[in-house]
Amino acid sequence: MRPITQEKIDKLTEFMQKKKIDSVFIADWENARDVNMSYLTGHPMDANLIITSDGETILLPWDVELAEDYAQVDTLVTDKESRNNYADYVKDTVKTDTPIIGFNTGIPYRYILSIKKKLPNAKLFDEPLKLDDLFRELRATKSLQELDKLVEAGKIGNKTINDIRKFAEEQKGTENDLSFLVMKKMREYGAEDNSFPSLVANVNRSHMIHCHPAANNNVYSANGLALIDFGAVYEGYCCDITIPISFGKLTAEQKKIKKTCFRAYEEAIAAIDIGVPLWKISKAAVDVIEEAGYHIPHGLGHGLGLTVHDSPGIRQKPTEPEKLEEWTEVVVEDGMVFTIEPGVYVKGLGGQRLENDVMIRNGKVQVYTKSEPIEIE
Amino acid sequence: MRPITQEKIDKLTEFMQKKKIDSVFIADWENARDVNMSYLTGHPMDANLIITSDGETILLPWDVELAEDYAQVDTLVTDKESRNNYADYVKDTVKTDTPIIGFNTGIPYRYILSIKKKLPNAKLFDEPLKLDDLFRELRATKSLQELDKLVEAGKIGNKTINDIRKFAEEQKGTENDLSFLVMKKMREYGAEDNSFPSLVANVNRSHMIHCHPAANNNVYSANGLALIDFGAVYEGYCCDITIPISFGKLTAEQKKIKKTCFRAYEEAIAAIDIGVPLWKISKAAVDVIEEAGYHIPHGLGHGLGLTVHDSPGIRQKPTEPEKLEEWTEVVVEDGMVFTIEPGVYVKGLGGQRLENDVMIRNGKVQVYTKSEPIEIE
Repeated sequence: MRPITQEKIDKLTEFMQKKKIDSVFIADWENARDVNMSYLTGHPMDANLIITSDGETILLPWDVELAEDYAQVDTLVTDKESRNNYADYVKDTVKTDTPIIGFNTGIPYRYILSIKKKLPNAKLFDEPLKLDDLFRELRATKSLQELDKLVEAGKIGNKTINDIRKFAEEQKGTENDLSFLVMKKMREYGAEDNSFPSLVANVNRSHMIHCHPAANNNVYSANGLALIDFGAVYEGYCCDITIPISFGKLTAEQKKIKKTCFRAYEEAIAAIDIGVPLWKISKAAVDVIEEAGYHIPHGLGHGLGLTVHDSPGIRQKPTEPEKLEEWTEVVVEDGMVFTIEPGVYVKGLGGQRLENDVMIRNGKVQVYTKSEPIEIE
Repeated sequence: MRPITQEKIDKLTEFMQKKKIDSVFIADWENARDVNMSYLTGHPMDANLIITSDGETILLPWDVELAEDYAQVDTLVTDKESRNNYADYVKDTVKTDTPIIGFNTGIPYRYILSIKKKLPNAKLFDEPLKLDDLFRELRATKSLQELDKLVEAGKIGNKTINDIRKFAEEQKGTENDLSFLVMKKMREYGAEDNSFPSLVANVNRSHMIHCHPAANNNVYSANGLALIDFGAVYEGYCCDITIPISFGKLTAEQKKIKKTCFRAYEEAIAAIDIGVPLWKISKAAVDVIEEAGYHIPHGLGHGLGLTVHDSPGIRQKPTEPEKLEEWTEVVVEDGMVFTIEPGVYVKGLGGQRLENDVMIRNGKVQVYTKSEPIEIE
């Protein structure tokens, strides 16, 4: 069974019929992932997918055996060359010489070129951003089966928080040691993988949005503000947690960074309710941060699902008229799952980010991961 | 200093001038990596890059501080919104309303849409595959500085082979245990990361081209054919090694699989020399495999560089006239670095793949990684 409902597939085919799209073509490959392939088929990775306007799903996988185990599609193409000859398969699905083919805008341009070569009179669906929007909308609310998997991923994250606390309390070991510990523990607890390489930053690196490398061989428990941002994958579904940690005596400014981050978090969580526009949740936190004289260099939160950056995004309402024109207000709905992760960063002093995962289930707001500040004095 | 030579940048600008391309636009972001951004700038990730026909490089990074540490460009844009407003920056670099903009075909379609919106009369360089080809050609031969980094990555891999051998000899532990051991050891030896998640497959999974998940909690040393495919990243540069391993008494067919794989490897290595067409190296191995009645479901080898699948590809010469028409013969040149990795896979019996990394330096062919079969009786 697919983790998503037939209703979502039906929405896609309704959209295609309304927009007169003959076939949608989706490609998911190394360096150009499109999670919609997994989302619509259950097949984990490396395949092209064609969806016809009748709702037929045709999968062209690299690894046919893997697809036999995982994919839930109408037609599984076993021809080993199909991943190169995909344009022929697209051609076979359409009934006219002038079909309309739909793409996500994330698709590498080469696929469009190849399909245009095989079907020179094909039209590209001329509002491709709307196809993106549709997929984002479909993925923004989860089925119950998806929610269950997200909760399991969150539980693995929660167990790992205890290990991180112990590691911090012992005040020894490097960023890399903590990174490995987290990876090992998450697998022990049932994760199939990290949802991304854990970002482990001591005071010298915690001011970076996304420290590079993700962890290094420096001592983790140096005095000051540190953090760890990590997550587990459970049956394809991701969690994402950041724990702000402080070691030793802090300066007044470091205390202010901490306090501002945590207050922004509390305000954002308090703002979440069914029907609330997502930008208002963002504003609740960003106002706190900006009033304190800081700037948050990233969005307040993002959806979680088969990818760690899923829809919906929790961001500010655009102010520029040009962007406002393209923007659509999205409100909190049942089935949404997203992170809340305000951060305050000052080079030289370090940064703090507090991130938990929130789910709306049966009309209730549940903060289902359990990150909280760790303070080692 | 960039790890590549000015000569390569000059080749790009010569190409642009010859083809009358006003600006080339490159985007490297999560889920749509384009290693040419790092290649041309030294900046590790997450940025847009514009190259003008005068050879000016303009970087629009997500993390400005990271770029300040790493990027070697003419202009580093510090405007935090530049990653969204890239089309404005492209517009600023061109001198006419009808410029020609060059893209790699891997670029997500959305970038093309945004730039077309801002520059409605812009023409896309109408042979974009040729721009891809140029980048592939530039990256196919390495500078001395790049070769040094590749050798360092290979050394880390070679040290780790000893740890893998010990693990196999002890005949205990799971696929995941070996996966973690390799990750930990490679970091100890100086790797900044794995070049990909190690594929650790015992007899039940070694017939898969790319086992999923990459490692699991089953015992590794079960009787029969196993393998491990792993690699290190050193200062951005990758190595890639596969060790075929066998445990216990093998059946006649399993022995044949092993023997065929190793003989194919020997034939391929023997075929490498300056001036030899790459397809002939592939053919040397594939002939052995096919004469034994097997089929190799992947290419014989691939380039190594800033990405673990770099150019050149070591593949068969196409047979279909349509593909042959688009195909160009590439021959072995000084500065090339690539894997040789024949594999033989039979479901139910397991698989064997032997993979080492080869470098052509000062006219000499060097197999600089040291994988060889491990046989535990």
